[in-house]
Amino acid sequence: MKTLDNFSVEELHRFEDEAKKYYGELKSRKVDINMARGKPCAEQLELSTELFDLDLSQCGYKAEDGTDCRNYGLLCGIPECRRLFGEVFGVDPKNVIACGSSSLNLMFDYFSQCYTHGVCGSKPWSQVPGYKIIAVVPGYDRHFAVAQYFGAELVNVKMTADGPDMDAIEELVKDPAVKGMFCVPKYSNPDGITYSDKTVERLASMKTAADDFRVIWDEAYIIHDLYDEKDELSNVFELAKKYGTEDRFVAFASTSKITYPGAGVSAVAASDANIEDIKKRLTVQIISYDKLNQLRHSFLYKNLDDLKAQMAKHAEILRPKFAKMAEVLHKRLGGLGIASWTDPKGGYFISLNVDIGSAKRVGELCRECGVTLTGVGATYPYGNDPDDANIRLAPSCPTVDEIETAAEVICAAVKIAAAEQLLGKGEKE
Amino acid sequence: MKTLDNFSVEELHRFEDEAKKYYGELKSRKVDINMARGKPCAEQLELSTELFDLDLSQCGYKAEDGTDCRNYGLLCGIPECRRLFGEVFGVDPKNVIACGSSSLNLMFDYFSQCYTHGVCGSKPWSQVPGYKIIAVVPGYDRHFAVAQYFGAELVNVKMTADGPDMDAIEELVKDPAVKGMFCVPKYSNPDGITYSDKTVERLASMKTAADDFRVIWDEAYIIHDLYDEKDELSNVFELAKKYGTEDRFVAFASTSKITYPGAGVSAVAASDANIEDIKKRLTVQIISYDKLNQLRHSFLYKNLDDLKAQMAKHAEILRPKFAKMAEVLHKRLGGLGIASWTDPKGGYFISLNVDIGSAKRVGELCRECGVTLTGVGATYPYGNDPDDANIRLAPSCPTVDEIETAAEVICAAVKIAAAEQLLGKGEKE
Repeated sequence: MKTLDNFSVEELHRFEDEAKKYYGELKSRKVDINMARGKPCAEQLELSTELFDLDLSQCGYKAEDGTDCRNYGLLCGIPECRRLFGEVFGVDPKNVIACGSSSLNLMFDYFSQCYTHGVCGSKPWSQVPGYKIIAVVPGYDRHFAVAQYFGAELVNVKMTADGPDMDAIEELVKDPAVKGMFCVPKYSNPDGITYSDKTVERLASMKTAADDFRVIWDEAYIIHDLYDEKDELSNVFELAKKYGTEDRFVAFASTSKITYPGAGVSAVAASDANIEDIKKRLTVQIISYDKLNQLRHSFLYKNLDDLKAQMAKHAEILRPKFAKMAEVLHKRLGGLGIASWTDPKGGYFISLNVDIGSAKRVGELCRECGVTLTGVGATYPYGNDPDDANIRLAPSCPTVDEIETAAEVICAAVKIAAAEQLLGKGEKE
Repeated sequence: MKTLDNFSVEELHRFEDEAKKYYGELKSRKVDINMARGKPCAEQLELSTELFDLDLSQCGYKAEDGTDCRNYGLLCGIPECRRLFGEVFGVDPKNVIACGSSSLNLMFDYFSQCYTHGVCGSKPWSQVPGYKIIAVVPGYDRHFAVAQYFGAELVNVKMTADGPDMDAIEELVKDPAVKGMFCVPKYSNPDGITYSDKTVERLASMKTAADDFRVIWDEAYIIHDLYDEKDELSNVFELAKKYGTEDRFVAFASTSKITYPGAGVSAVAASDANIEDIKKRLTVQIISYDKLNQLRHSFLYKNLDDLKAQMAKHAEILRPKFAKMAEVLHKRLGGLGIASWTDPKGGYFISLNVDIGSAKRVGELCRECGVTLTGVGATYPYGNDPDDANIRLAPSCPTVDEIETAAEVICAAVKIAAAEQLLGKGEKE
């Protein structure tokens, strides 16, 4: 098969016409499909209805240490919930604080703390002029937004098949104004890439000029596998201990995509020193998090195996959607040399990378055809993808049929945009 | 009856001996009673078990606008919950954001926002050297802690029977570095005083040198009446509108003492401009709060009357405790001229004010006798009560019998401390 850049002008016109014709047909179907966010679908929401049927009076609404979860107390969460997350993170429960319903909220709060009060006694980041945060790109728009909200300058580092470009990072962290980075180390958002053992080890072992350099280790998809053959991520805390950098990493997770988005339990895992540092703030910020919701979750999920069994049910629903997306992308765009995409073994996203300079146009064409994608550019800080190449696809929420239709629209749009560009029409804007 | 300052030395010695003898008897009972915090008792926790028996599948887990509460969405909370809190605050639902389980958390976050980002575009408080926050004393230790955490200098203003000393406040706010204050306007913590109409009006009408002066209006006990004859608080937002100061007040409340402490729903009420200002942060901080818990609460409490019916049940349990405390205080200390106390119509606390310089000694004597009080001094910033006079009593958690015993201990301690002081023994330390 000939790649598009080897097409003659005549062939390109024919290719464009065909794509436009197909696009027109799809448009006439009055499609309305939203693939913007990593939102579980209705079927997934039915997997956790047991949470509503629990009889917590069985244990007198008490945590295993006897604390009545209906009253104030236990700033760090109930023991069984800390233990559960300890298993998830692979750390001692004493290094876990079980919190409220949002891990984004926890990350925002932690960043805020670094900004106003520094890290374990360091100078507050707010007092470091031009302090910088490394943004792995493409990445998660909400991470960038947190750093931007607190005035950080974001410095892009490219994602590779092994995780972020470590050569670039090792160079950047020689600057003491570089204070930290956000990572989604397993099934990254949006690429679905899991950091290699070597990458994790380099993050743990590298020297940073800033003593108070912090990695916000967002384990959003830590057990969110799609297949039996899953990606394995090194235990960053174990590696960090080896290199004496255990204070560098602060990890976050939640049950948002295990039970209910925004109504589950979140947690933070960190070294003794970081936990103490966080508790100093928490003591002022809150009396105790919602222990009843922690109790509900701990009641249903006693250990990591229970959680994995739940995740297998999610995978059952999600797998055909990811497969359908991959199938159509392959069928329609394979071999044309105008786009590439990731085929993740877990997480919530697929990255579609289109010809340089045409992603916005693809987003536009999709929108006109009733398919809403994540705002093109959103996977880069300031919404600015310098290559205008990355599109995040979130296949969880629509049905398999909708995915198929959306994928067809996307592929038609990619073809049109590529032809336009090769024919020089993209230059107009 | 002769007041203690008119006792002869001999009489004082006899008085002290008797108090000590009684104190010794109480001590031999091996009492262990905690009156430190405003914590609901076990019986109160039983009032909300209906929350666990709701069948939310009846409404398909959907809010009244059709939003599935099991998924992301509705940054500002579900409509019915915003409406419910709108009734509580006496404001339009559009001026309410229904949030997570802790109003302290909301106040901390709001203060943090003022500190890092200013107020509706003003200079961040962190950039105002020596910025000051008015502390109404005695007051709530957690309020002081928030302001202190963010580096504010706290300036004491005394509480009066009508609310804070408004003459002092009107003078202080002429200083542009005075940026705000915390208020518990109804059944204040710890005095149980409700601000008079005149006080609320003066707070609304006063001129402040700082354009970004903010009153954190903590409505912790807004419907927490003990008796049918209840205190009435003016609607601060209506008064503020009259004076064009509606941006000055940001109000907070939660169901912590309506349903479950730390596991209920909290909310913030504010002007359009403040709501927008808060939403700018929230958009970065969180995707959505726990709507399922909002739904549970809205399911059970459709309107303010439902909430009031629930509060009547709490009052039933709390009333005898407050009454017993007042009874013993009156019986043991009445007419001696060594202590005074408040007799609130609602809220969670009683203020006991003892002879100047003896509160710490009273706390010590109580502790030695197995009665834990709120740390003496905690009702003042930096734990420093310049008069060493105020003791906060929290009668909610112990049983009526325990209250009686604790009250006897407290009264014996007050008598001993007063006698010691009048006999000059207090000078020793």
